[in-house]
Amino acid sequence: MRAAIFRNGQIVVDSMPEPKPGAGQVLVKTLACGICGSDLHARKHAHRMVEMAKYVGRKPMDLSRDVVFGHEFCCEVLDYGPATPRRLKPGTRVCSLPALLTPTGPAGIGYSNDNVGGYAEAMLLSEPLLLEVPNGLTAEHAALTEPLAVGVHAVAKANISGGEVPLVIGCGPVGLAVIAALRIKGLRPIIAADYSPARRARAEKMGADVVVDPARAQPYATWAEHAAMSAEEKAARPAFQAHLAALKPALIFECVGVPGLLQQVFEGAPRDARIVVVGVCMETDRNEPMLGIMKELNVQYVLGYTPDEFAGSLRLLAEGEVDAPALVTGSVGLDGVAQAFDDLANPEAHTKMIVEPWR
Amino acid sequence: MRAAIFRNGQIVVDSMPEPKPGAGQVLVKTLACGICGSDLHARKHAHRMVEMAKYVGRKPMDLSRDVVFGHEFCCEVLDYGPATPRRLKPGTRVCSLPALLTPTGPAGIGYSNDNVGGYAEAMLLSEPLLLEVPNGLTAEHAALTEPLAVGVHAVAKANISGGEVPLVIGCGPVGLAVIAALRIKGLRPIIAADYSPARRARAEKMGADVVVDPARAQPYATWAEHAAMSAEEKAARPAFQAHLAALKPALIFECVGVPGLLQQVFEGAPRDARIVVVGVCMETDRNEPMLGIMKELNVQYVLGYTPDEFAGSLRLLAEGEVDAPALVTGSVGLDGVAQAFDDLANPEAHTKMIVEPWR
Repeated sequence: MRAAIFRNGQIVVDSMPEPKPGAGQVLVKTLACGICGSDLHARKHAHRMVEMAKYVGRKPMDLSRDVVFGHEFCCEVLDYGPATPRRLKPGTRVCSLPALLTPTGPAGIGYSNDNVGGYAEAMLLSEPLLLEVPNGLTAEHAALTEPLAVGVHAVAKANISGGEVPLVIGCGPVGLAVIAALRIKGLRPIIAADYSPARRARAEKMGADVVVDPARAQPYATWAEHAAMSAEEKAARPAFQAHLAALKPALIFECVGVPGLLQQVFEGAPRDARIVVVGVCMETDRNEPMLGIMKELNVQYVLGYTPDEFAGSLRLLAEGEVDAPALVTGSVGLDGVAQAFDDLANPEAHTKMIVEPWR
Repeated sequence: MRAAIFRNGQIVVDSMPEPKPGAGQVLVKTLACGICGSDLHARKHAHRMVEMAKYVGRKPMDLSRDVVFGHEFCCEVLDYGPATPRRLKPGTRVCSLPALLTPTGPAGIGYSNDNVGGYAEAMLLSEPLLLEVPNGLTAEHAALTEPLAVGVHAVAKANISGGEVPLVIGCGPVGLAVIAALRIKGLRPIIAADYSPARRARAEKMGADVVVDPARAQPYATWAEHAAMSAEEKAARPAFQAHLAALKPALIFECVGVPGLLQQVFEGAPRDARIVVVGVCMETDRNEPMLGIMKELNVQYVLGYTPDEFAGSLRLLAEGEVDAPALVTGSVGLDGVAQAFDDLANPEAHTKMIVEPWR
């Protein structure tokens, strides 16, 4: 079969043997697989990713061997391994967490030498993890389940109590997923900031109530305008806080993931802000802890999602709760993957590109 | 009156005019005032403190003018300003938040050019903030109200739900206050780590169940030994977490406050740990956000306490809920303050030194 392979720091198209499903496994045809910002990071900072995996005790990629990226996929059942329940008939379209169940626990799909990811014509999934794609949802939109689940999880980890005013910093795919999840949660007004006009327009489509261009206005000042307490809320504050600005609680989603960004949030955030770090910064970062201390900030780092959040995200897409067409900005065959990685650097042109390996 | 003054980066003893109480103010004799780690930091990093105050919009110290440190005090009422209720008669022993109420909000005592702190024979307090010291509690022990309140606040901000196993990193005054507050909260076992044998002994006196010398054992490994889930807890976990270590939730208190320490906690912390940053790091810090992300860590920065927590801490001391004598390791007059700052660098000798300006 053909695949777009990460080899020696480059994405190259080559042939490789089709994988053979073992017990409990399913051979699937990859219909659609989104390109994730983490894939772009991984191509650029693969050694850092290996270092970090070692740090936290996960099996790192062996960069001297081939890796096939791709963990945002929608597939079609082709065949089952031996001694495997055949719950869904061949031809059924399915999504799955990007993991293979093994006797020692789940093993990742997408940054692994052993398990081929979605930038290949076929791949293996685990039978118990298969989720049938509800009728009518296209493969391209079903492939958004994974990135949407990232937003759903980030919002779940924010422990929203209801009175917060959210500010989303960065409206790439992660920020857009957070906005979609916030809108579903009903927490409004949603303030969102991005330098790119195209991304701000997409943020509005996803449900942002107010968008800010940080080159023209300070996002935290715009946030404060929309976070003013009502007269009752002001009156209900403890007396010793009467001298503080009368603002509703701030819930800031950092969806950029580059060094220095969290420090910017520390500088702009109001007192007692809760910050959810959804952007994946793979480099060493610096900050001023005194800012966090003097403002009593809370920082929640998040990653991934639970199986329930993943399944729920597929349902949300199937029920039309998220404007999926607004998220997908292009699609390519395997031969277009390397170019797509470069194209995704331009936020005006693209947010989410879908790889269709069968093309 | 005499005072130990911070002048040109040094602590010097000199005379200064006794302050005159204005409306709503009280002139008090300083009976006892603890030396805080922040005072040591401030002597060494005063310019950083000024920078940070500016950053967060507080009035910074003018380092070209005198400052009298000291914000952990117990005093005796001497006289009242004009138009001020005389609720407590002269001679009454009192504690107060280190703040003066002004028309524009509270102004700090202890790092201010305007409001003299506790390293002076007399100072001004605000009448509404006075808390009478319950009979029998010595001034030296009542002066522990402020540092204890720091621990009580840190534990309150940890949002304890009951199943966590706490690990306290650093057993200086801040760590000891956290241990005392955890013991009062009833969360056990309390694991505490410090390189100093004297501090580990004090941690045990404060209520630590297990103490660790990081030179001999990894604190996180010791924590894990004591955080193993019961069979029922193991069985109640979601299926998708079955491959993870069966550990109770980690609640880590960072009570050291030097650059690199939070990164060490990131390295050692188990997945999903909540980290409360109580140590005050005044320098730029570096860390690996990927560690936080991959472990989904939560970092709560804390500072100070509420008025209720402060009043509650005085009650706890008066009711003998905290082993106050174990916390105080020495006392000095004003002439001994500069030397005491140096002596506090040796954790074997001292934890908390009390200044008695009347000596």
